[in-house]
Amino acid sequence: MSTLINKQFKLAARPVGLVKRSDFTFEESPAPSPGPGQLLIKVLYISLDPAMRGWMNAGKSYIAPVEIGDVMRAGTIGEVVASNHPGFAVGDFVSGSQGVQSYALSDGKGLFKVDAKAAPLPKYLNALGMPGMTGYFGLLDVGQPKAGETVLVSAASGAVGQVVGQVAKIKGCHVVGIAGGAEKCEYAVQELGYDACIDYKRGPIFPGLAQYCPQGVDVFFDNVGGEILDAVLTRIRMRARIVICGAISQYNNTTPIQGPKNYLSLLVNRARMEGIVVFDWAPRYGEAVAQLAAWMQEGKLKSKEDIVEGIETFPETLLKLFSGENFGKLVLKV
Amino acid sequence: MSTLINKQFKLAARPVGLVKRSDFTFEESPAPSPGPGQLLIKVLYISLDPAMRGWMNAGKSYIAPVEIGDVMRAGTIGEVVASNHPGFAVGDFVSGSQGVQSYALSDGKGLFKVDAKAAPLPKYLNALGMPGMTGYFGLLDVGQPKAGETVLVSAASGAVGQVVGQVAKIKGCHVVGIAGGAEKCEYAVQELGYDACIDYKRGPIFPGLAQYCPQGVDVFFDNVGGEILDAVLTRIRMRARIVICGAISQYNNTTPIQGPKNYLSLLVNRARMEGIVVFDWAPRYGEAVAQLAAWMQEGKLKSKEDIVEGIETFPETLLKLFSGENFGKLVLKV
Repeated sequence: MSTLINKQFKLAARPVGLVKRSDFTFEESPAPSPGPGQLLIKVLYISLDPAMRGWMNAGKSYIAPVEIGDVMRAGTIGEVVASNHPGFAVGDFVSGSQGVQSYALSDGKGLFKVDAKAAPLPKYLNALGMPGMTGYFGLLDVGQPKAGETVLVSAASGAVGQVVGQVAKIKGCHVVGIAGGAEKCEYAVQELGYDACIDYKRGPIFPGLAQYCPQGVDVFFDNVGGEILDAVLTRIRMRARIVICGAISQYNNTTPIQGPKNYLSLLVNRARMEGIVVFDWAPRYGEAVAQLAAWMQEGKLKSKEDIVEGIETFPETLLKLFSGENFGKLVLKV
Repeated sequence: MSTLINKQFKLAARPVGLVKRSDFTFEESPAPSPGPGQLLIKVLYISLDPAMRGWMNAGKSYIAPVEIGDVMRAGTIGEVVASNHPGFAVGDFVSGSQGVQSYALSDGKGLFKVDAKAAPLPKYLNALGMPGMTGYFGLLDVGQPKAGETVLVSAASGAVGQVVGQVAKIKGCHVVGIAGGAEKCEYAVQELGYDACIDYKRGPIFPGLAQYCPQGVDVFFDNVGGEILDAVLTRIRMRARIVICGAISQYNNTTPIQGPKNYLSLLVNRARMEGIVVFDWAPRYGEAVAQLAAWMQEGKLKSKEDIVEGIETFPETLLKLFSGENFGKLVLKV
């Protein structure tokens, strides 16, 4: 064990605005050895998610903040390389929250074995992981779309959005995406099966909403917030459901968050806006993974990853999320 | 009939900001005579409501705007003074939407007879009228409070708020109000039975929220919007329900509406914000009137009116709503 080097990113400062390398310390040290009941995981893939930005802020949210000096929290896929735990053997692949580091000790809590033969490992950070669970339960349980309704998805080709859009199509909805750039929009329509996709980088989205959602929007699954949420509020139908999954446009604000000034459209349209946190569905993850994996095998569900190599690139790679530069689920290959 | 003079306020201009007298024309003309199947109503009481400000704006909302030149729309209680309609006799008292005028023809559509012996007539514009219906269904059907939960009500002593607060107490909730001024707060606690009431005119409401809603807020019934909604969003509990009934703080804005910048609290707390329009419950008004009247007779429900005399005072009296000067349901006695 003494030859294994653990590379770790620890939070050094609470970022102001966009994350920078100096908000972290990068440390190299010998990987630890597992004690009784413990196992050692070699981290293979690290999930980079918009939510990580929120975890770096002080103050209680739906989860405790990462403390200064702690390894930065992140979802991971790893391989068991040493084990004193009866439930895990060397060679097992596990999903968990091992953080931005190359080796991690675990007592087995919060670990799930994943089947490397059933799907490529990065899929377990994408459609078969937290983004997939978020899209699946957020759309079906909170959005409650009915066949024939119009479902609109912001960050349509993102990790969560691609699952939402495809599941909505499977459920018989008219599905429209919002994404940044022609390439993402083309992918959403050609590969993910969206009926249309509005490129917000080309200008205001109002004309696209009018053209592609002529009846208005029944379900809006929002990952973005800001101007886009405000624009969509002007186009919702009676009894529309707005699923608040995130607000990536606002996470790096150094000024107050932009509230949806058109929120009284909720009143006019007897509509509702509801927030979700995927952890609430943990008891039902198995059901979703089974269904999503089945759709994948039937060719009805695709998921795309944007895999960047090298744990050392972590701070800069994370920034791709906020510039919209990533294309598909952003994954760091250790 | 020729001696009856009809006094009417017609919309002359779409107001910018606060309503002014010059936004209306005041006309006097002979009252019309009912044709076949028609009846003539002498308007006795006119309901003045925050929603009227929205009806004066151009553009479709949940109801068509009042057109320039039309009699200003308003809920009314009147007495039938002439009738060629088989369903209504001279001397009947009727609730309807006869507008800001002293006489009105009707074909009977949208009229409901009210029992002047069961309750004083102005109550039919208050707890037994639209404000009562709004509070009753908005709280019970949308807010869905459970006994023991904390219900917070803005404009706590207003027409809608007083019903919400008292019904929430009847349902076994811990009920806290927000109102402007010591007199209204004292009334809310002493007369309406609120457990506490926060005076927003004394300064930021955060300390009061912390003191009187120590567990956080389960149901927020909001008539006000703006800073108050934003403050409450920081104190909601898991799975809270925010009922958006109105936003009187924003109706006279000449700048864009202030959106709730803390709306991501909905996400963190898996909470929902939902708009209501009382008309949706029209088929169930009878049920609510019966229940509210029963509670009144049992002494469990009070409702207070602020009655101003003289139809000629309409524009200035309406302004009392937006300055918060009215105390109880604002009613114009013709």
